[in-house]
Amino acid sequence: MGSTHRRLTLLVLLFGAAVASGVEPVVLPSSVRGPAERLRDSIAGGSKAADWVREITDAAGPRLPGTPGNRAGIAAAVALLKAQGFANVRAEKVMTPAWARGVETGEVVSPAPHALALTALGGSVGTPPEGVEAEILRVGSLEELDAKGEAARGKIVFIDRPMTRTSDGSGYGNAARLRSSGPSRAGRLGAVGLLIRSVGTDNNRLPHTGAMRYEKGAPQVPAAALSIPDAELLTRLGRRGVPVRVRFTLGCHSLPDAESANVIGEVVGRETPEEIVLLGAHIDSWDLGTGALDDAAGCGIAVEAARQMMALSPRPRRTVRVVLFANEENGLAGGKAYATDHAAELERHVAAIEADLGQGPPLGFSWDAGPAAEGTLKAIAGLLAPTGADYLIAGEAGGADLTYLLPSGIPSLGLLLDATTYFDYHHTANDTFDKIDPRILDRSTAVLAAAAWVLADAPDHLERIPPDKRKLPAWVQ
Amino acid sequence: MGSTHRRLTLLVLLFGAAVASGVEPVVLPSSVRGPAERLRDSIAGGSKAADWVREITDAAGPRLPGTPGNRAGIAAAVALLKAQGFANVRAEKVMTPAWARGVETGEVVSPAPHALALTALGGSVGTPPEGVEAEILRVGSLEELDAKGEAARGKIVFIDRPMTRTSDGSGYGNAARLRSSGPSRAGRLGAVGLLIRSVGTDNNRLPHTGAMRYEKGAPQVPAAALSIPDAELLTRLGRRGVPVRVRFTLGCHSLPDAESANVIGEVVGRETPEEIVLLGAHIDSWDLGTGALDDAAGCGIAVEAARQMMALSPRPRRTVRVVLFANEENGLAGGKAYATDHAAELERHVAAIEADLGQGPPLGFSWDAGPAAEGTLKAIAGLLAPTGADYLIAGEAGGADLTYLLPSGIPSLGLLLDATTYFDYHHTANDTFDKIDPRILDRSTAVLAAAAWVLADAPDHLERIPPDKRKLPAWVQ
Repeated sequence: MGSTHRRLTLLVLLFGAAVASGVEPVVLPSSVRGPAERLRDSIAGGSKAADWVREITDAAGPRLPGTPGNRAGIAAAVALLKAQGFANVRAEKVMTPAWARGVETGEVVSPAPHALALTALGGSVGTPPEGVEAEILRVGSLEELDAKGEAARGKIVFIDRPMTRTSDGSGYGNAARLRSSGPSRAGRLGAVGLLIRSVGTDNNRLPHTGAMRYEKGAPQVPAAALSIPDAELLTRLGRRGVPVRVRFTLGCHSLPDAESANVIGEVVGRETPEEIVLLGAHIDSWDLGTGALDDAAGCGIAVEAARQMMALSPRPRRTVRVVLFANEENGLAGGKAYATDHAAELERHVAAIEADLGQGPPLGFSWDAGPAAEGTLKAIAGLLAPTGADYLIAGEAGGADLTYLLPSGIPSLGLLLDATTYFDYHHTANDTFDKIDPRILDRSTAVLAAAAWVLADAPDHLERIPPDKRKLPAWVQ
Repeated sequence: MGSTHRRLTLLVLLFGAAVASGVEPVVLPSSVRGPAERLRDSIAGGSKAADWVREITDAAGPRLPGTPGNRAGIAAAVALLKAQGFANVRAEKVMTPAWARGVETGEVVSPAPHALALTALGGSVGTPPEGVEAEILRVGSLEELDAKGEAARGKIVFIDRPMTRTSDGSGYGNAARLRSSGPSRAGRLGAVGLLIRSVGTDNNRLPHTGAMRYEKGAPQVPAAALSIPDAELLTRLGRRGVPVRVRFTLGCHSLPDAESANVIGEVVGRETPEEIVLLGAHIDSWDLGTGALDDAAGCGIAVEAARQMMALSPRPRRTVRVVLFANEENGLAGGKAYATDHAAELERHVAAIEADLGQGPPLGFSWDAGPAAEGTLKAIAGLLAPTGADYLIAGEAGGADLTYLLPSGIPSLGLLLDATTYFDYHHTANDTFDKIDPRILDRSTAVLAAAAWVLADAPDHLERIPPDKRKLPAWVQ
């Protein structure tokens, strides 16, 4: 899960959202409800979802586009889908932005000798080989930075805003917006570099990377995240009443676009195989960890949910297509390419669900569709009540990978997972397989499988997103 | 807290120990008991102990001997003691071993590309600039390593033994023994390097350093600790049935002995100032973090306990001497120098207490003295009952810094602190000030102050360690 803007939207939804409507749940035929209940109960009792997470992360390591790990991850996913008997398994080529990290060092020059644990934000320019060194200017917000104006000239701007720990991840958006916009804002004011308190909720000396983009025309200053203990150190040193001077070196740089791929496998429907329910996650990861939570967990959930649906007899009415997208973290090229490459069949996509918020436990679904869809979604929520994951939030939803499906009006769902500890690990070296709890992952997989079964097997389609609500958000246009 | 051997001894004590004896607690005069109770209650309600930890760690950073941080830490401690009104404040020169870390990289070469989070063990030789690369040989114990014998030749031995989380820290000894002895054992068998699962209880990608020593005549192979998630990765990769090849590079190297110092300050006694109760901790730290828990916490506890005793009127009968030792982590040169430099007054040291197990909460004291001391120690435990820290463990005790006081028979106590989470941070980059909980530190300080008051103000001395039990342990001879 990497998109700041999508998360911001979700934030609004979670706070704004979900006034109970008067729509009644539809009554699902027992032929639909029965298998969905069996999937729900059987998977929650034990599944192979964690095995797939282990397979992807151990076989590939970090999977940033353009790296051997990314290629290994794609190969591992293709091999996994083939071995598990999926149909039409393929890797569909996607050209993605590429960027490499390089050397990273940081230190407090004065008033006291401290090493700083920091890491470049994704997309940052590097520093000169000798680094940048300057006094820091600490601000708590972009507004405070703008108010300080000229005081930023020649300084290293230090944005110091804590992220709040919440179960719905709603603390992420506000903090991540600073990460995305801070570097350009600092550059325009004449700063020589930007440091930001990591967008995260832990207290480990492991900084959180994440995407940033330079605005057009803004001077490009090198930008890095400090681990949270290091940010707190700078804040404390600042209170000693003497200037705090910092030096940091980043060897990161952009590379020519790289070849990556969306990995696809299908469970072919028994009656209307041309109709598609898409289960999405992303195969790429940031480079610091192995992306076990972000988003090998989602890959494991989606693959295992579909595999368990495949094992049922009869199979669902429609085709279930697993899509493990390329390049969610630093470009969304995978989602964009999918929409282009599959333009002719998007009208036959009846629903798309994304799993990209870690491992769970599951809470429910966010959804975006026509209003008439609500009756079916309430029936799904009813089916999920025994799992505790019966929460529904209406409005724009899904995940960043599904963004480019919006113009086609495809009903989109996002698997809502408890994110209380997710941002302890998110985008850090600590996002590794040991953080996966197989029993929790099983519960999330059970919820996705049961919901997907209903969407793939119910007689009716969800109403599509109304034409007047299909406009791509400003941040991807 | 760095000494493997001392910890091993403590382990034995904690498991073996403390059969209730029939000795009755002595009755303390109310003139002794009253101030001790006041110290206990007042400090537990709030003290400046955490301020002193912050001052030392922020002003100095990491404090490995031979570094600017070590010198800054000594300067900060001297300034602090002077500013707080201690008497006879001085830094007593100590020459210590010196060693520097340098570059550190690690990676899995096959079967999959992974970066490895690792760090050199203190005292290790470096690798050639291109590193060492070999297949790993995984063992769970030194016995298993010996049994594999020739299989280690040309390999990188990987010692993979988890440390158990316990409240008394007793899981440390067994695991740390492997760290200390593993490199020589692997070298004798023809291995080209040694990797060990970090001796710690966390799941962060932050490896735990710690001391090792090459045995005389053993080939010196480079030795590093893997973070626990990385050790688990190697173990999982090993289960895939293909050889696991690893490369690592260490730039560490020994340096000429460095000048450091024991920092001393006193609260001069009102009646017999020539009699000394020593409150010890250590001012040095490993180089990865700022040693907030190990052992700036102990420094903060000792300094604040003595400062609060100084503030009482009248002052205690005897002199309370705070000693912040040099070089606990990688040589014990501070403890040794203290015993030499103060040889003439060791007979007048009536007790020594060390605080070197993090921040707490407090549990009680380990102790080593003549059997007649037990009555007074039981009286102290009774005084501490309301704090929950009334646990007494008899036998060799104190802390590593006090080792060289043993031949003089000085009654030694170790402040026992709850170590349940201590080994999550111990000897890692994560040992930083943000981990300090001031309220917990206050409770530990209260316990030390109350106990020290009794020792410094009671009419009688503790019985000294019997002459037949004053032999230095083998590992320091």
